[in-house]
Amino acid sequence: MRAWEKNIRRVAPYVPGEQPKSEKPIKLNTNENPYPPAPGVKQAFKEMDAGQFRKYPDSTSSELIKALSEYYQVEENEVFVGVGSDDVIAMAFMTFFNSELPILFPDVSYSFYKVWADLLHISYETPALDENFCIHKEDYYKANGGIIFPNPNAPTGLLLPLEEVEDIIAHNQDSVIIVDEAYIDFGGESAVRLTRKYENLLVVQTFSKSRSLAGLRIGYAIGHPDLIRAVNDVKNSYNSYTLNMPSIKLGAEAVKDETYFKESLERIVKTREESKLRLKKLGFSFPDSMANFIFATHKDRSAKDIYKALRENHIYVRYFDQPRLDNHLRISIGTDEEMKKFFEFLEVFLSD
Amino acid sequence: MRAWEKNIRRVAPYVPGEQPKSEKPIKLNTNENPYPPAPGVKQAFKEMDAGQFRKYPDSTSSELIKALSEYYQVEENEVFVGVGSDDVIAMAFMTFFNSELPILFPDVSYSFYKVWADLLHISYETPALDENFCIHKEDYYKANGGIIFPNPNAPTGLLLPLEEVEDIIAHNQDSVIIVDEAYIDFGGESAVRLTRKYENLLVVQTFSKSRSLAGLRIGYAIGHPDLIRAVNDVKNSYNSYTLNMPSIKLGAEAVKDETYFKESLERIVKTREESKLRLKKLGFSFPDSMANFIFATHKDRSAKDIYKALRENHIYVRYFDQPRLDNHLRISIGTDEEMKKFFEFLEVFLSD
Repeated sequence: MRAWEKNIRRVAPYVPGEQPKSEKPIKLNTNENPYPPAPGVKQAFKEMDAGQFRKYPDSTSSELIKALSEYYQVEENEVFVGVGSDDVIAMAFMTFFNSELPILFPDVSYSFYKVWADLLHISYETPALDENFCIHKEDYYKANGGIIFPNPNAPTGLLLPLEEVEDIIAHNQDSVIIVDEAYIDFGGESAVRLTRKYENLLVVQTFSKSRSLAGLRIGYAIGHPDLIRAVNDVKNSYNSYTLNMPSIKLGAEAVKDETYFKESLERIVKTREESKLRLKKLGFSFPDSMANFIFATHKDRSAKDIYKALRENHIYVRYFDQPRLDNHLRISIGTDEEMKKFFEFLEVFLSD
Repeated sequence: MRAWEKNIRRVAPYVPGEQPKSEKPIKLNTNENPYPPAPGVKQAFKEMDAGQFRKYPDSTSSELIKALSEYYQVEENEVFVGVGSDDVIAMAFMTFFNSELPILFPDVSYSFYKVWADLLHISYETPALDENFCIHKEDYYKANGGIIFPNPNAPTGLLLPLEEVEDIIAHNQDSVIIVDEAYIDFGGESAVRLTRKYENLLVVQTFSKSRSLAGLRIGYAIGHPDLIRAVNDVKNSYNSYTLNMPSIKLGAEAVKDETYFKESLERIVKTREESKLRLKKLGFSFPDSMANFIFATHKDRSAKDIYKALRENHIYVRYFDQPRLDNHLRISIGTDEEMKKFFEFLEVFLSD
C-alpha cells in the first residue's frame, strides 16, 4: 500500500437503483413520478435565459425558500434546502448527530442512514421492525444521540400514524429527531405542524417523488429556526452555493401549482390502490403502502426469479439482496399504461 | 442551553461575495465571467425537455465525464465531478485528509480551506506567504497529512510556475496533494499532465470562471484512477445524485466548444492587461495576476474607503476585512464597458 493510501476514508457506498440504458424500459424501480412536472415548471424553464448562468446562483435560494414557506405556512427561517433530500439529511447528520450516544433508526428503512453514519463515524443502533415490518414506538424510548426514520417507511410503504410519530418525539426531548417524509404526500399526514410544538424536530421532504423533479435534485427540511440556522451554518461551511439556478427557479414554480400537484397525486394513489387489488389476485401480499410503491412478496414464486424475468422483458423493479428483504420486490407506481404492461407480463409469467 | 443543542457541530461558515439586489450593478466582486456561456450551451438548453426532469439524473454524470476526458486526453476513470469545485474539494478533504499530521496550505489563500478543515476536524498549519505574497516551496518540505494550494493563488492572482508545483509534489510522496486550479485557464500552465507522473496528485478545476457557468455549479477533479475511485466512493456515501440534469448536459456542451472558450479567455486576458496599466497610472500596485481578477492596493487611499465609495455607486468589488488583506481590493475583470465605468468612477474619486 502506498503511504498516501493509508489515510483514505474507507466506506461502503450506497447503491442507487439501476438506470437502464435500454430503449423504452418500463421503470418501476426508483420511485420516480410517472407524470411530468407542473406546466408552470415547463413554462418557467422555457423563459430562463441561459446567458445568466455565467453568474452565481442566489446562495440563499430565497425564491424557493419563499415558495415553500408560503405553501407550509411557516416563516422563511424555518426552511432549509439542499441538493435532494439526501444532501439535506447528510448535512443534518453532520450538524446534529455528534453525541457519544448512538443514534437510532429502524433495521429496515432507507439504507442510506447506515451509510451516512459510517461515513461520518456516528455510532448507531437499529431497533428491529416486527414480523409485519411495523415500527414499535417503545423501541425509541431509550437515551440516544438522535433518531431518524422515514414515514412512510422505505421500502415497506407503511405509515406510522401521526400520534405515534408525536409519541416518539415527546419521549425524546434531549436529541434531534428527523422524520424523513420523502413519500408523505401519497397518503400520510405530515409532521410539519409538530415543528412548532417540538423545537428538536426536523421534517425532511423532497421534490423527487410527489413533485416530479428528481432530475433537478431538490430537497428541504422544516424545523425550528435554531435547527435551520445550525444546518445552514454547516452547509455554508461545506458549499456556499449548492442549488443551481434551474433548481431554485423551477422548484419554486413546482410548489406554486397546487391544483396540478393534487391531481397528479390523486392519479398515482388511484393507480396504487388498483395495483394492490391486482397484486392480491395474483397471489402477492404486501404491507398496506401509503407511498408511491408497493413492497410485495409472492406466495409461490421467489422475488428474485420474478425480478429477473421482468428485467429480461425491460420491466425494472427494485430487488434488495439482503436478509429480510430478499423475497420482496419494491414496485414503483407507474402510469396506468405502464402498470397494464407490468400486470400483463406477470399474469403470463405466473401462470407458467 | 437545551440538551439537544449540546451536540450541534459548531462552525464559522465561509462568507461568499455579496450578490447585490440593486438594479444594474457592476459586479466585479465574485470573479464571475463577464461573458455568457458558449452558444452550444444555449442551444442545448433550449432543446432540453423539462418533462424529463421527473426522472433521476445519471448518477455517474457520464456525458460530462466523457466530454472532460476527451478535452484533457485522459481516461474517464481519471475524472470526478461535483457541485462546483467547493463540493469537489470538500469531498476530497473528507476522502484524503484523515491523517494525524496537519495538512498544509498558505496563510493567504482561498479562505474556504480553513473552514473545511474546521468543519471536518482536520488539523492544519498555514506556512506564511512572503511580503510579496509569494509561496516558498521549501515551506512544504515537512511531514504532513496533505497539501492544498490554489494556483494561481487567491486572492492574489499570483501563479506558481509548474516546475515549482512539481517540486512540491516531488517532495511529498506520502500524502495527497491537491492543486486548486480555479483560475488556471486565464494564463497558467495546468498540472493536469503531472497526474500521470504522480499518483497522489489531484488537480481541481471549475466551470464557474473560465467556462461561464457559475449558475450551474459544476466542478471537477483529475487524478489517478485510485484517487478518483476513493473520492467517488465517498461521494456515493454522501449523495448518489449530485449533478442535476441541466448541469450534466450543459456542462458537456460548454467543454465541446473550444473556439468560443479560447476567444472569451483572450478577451478577458486582454482586458486584464489593459486594466493593470490603468490601475498603475492611478497609483495602485498589485501582484502580477494570472487570474481573472487583480488584487490591488492604493498608495494613498485606504482600500476600505475606495470599496465603500464604489459600492455607493453600485460598483461592487471584493474587500476582505482581515489582517494582511485589509488594504487591498480584489477586482474581478468585467467587460470592457464595465471596466470603463469602473475606471471613470475611480479617476474622479481619486482626484478629489
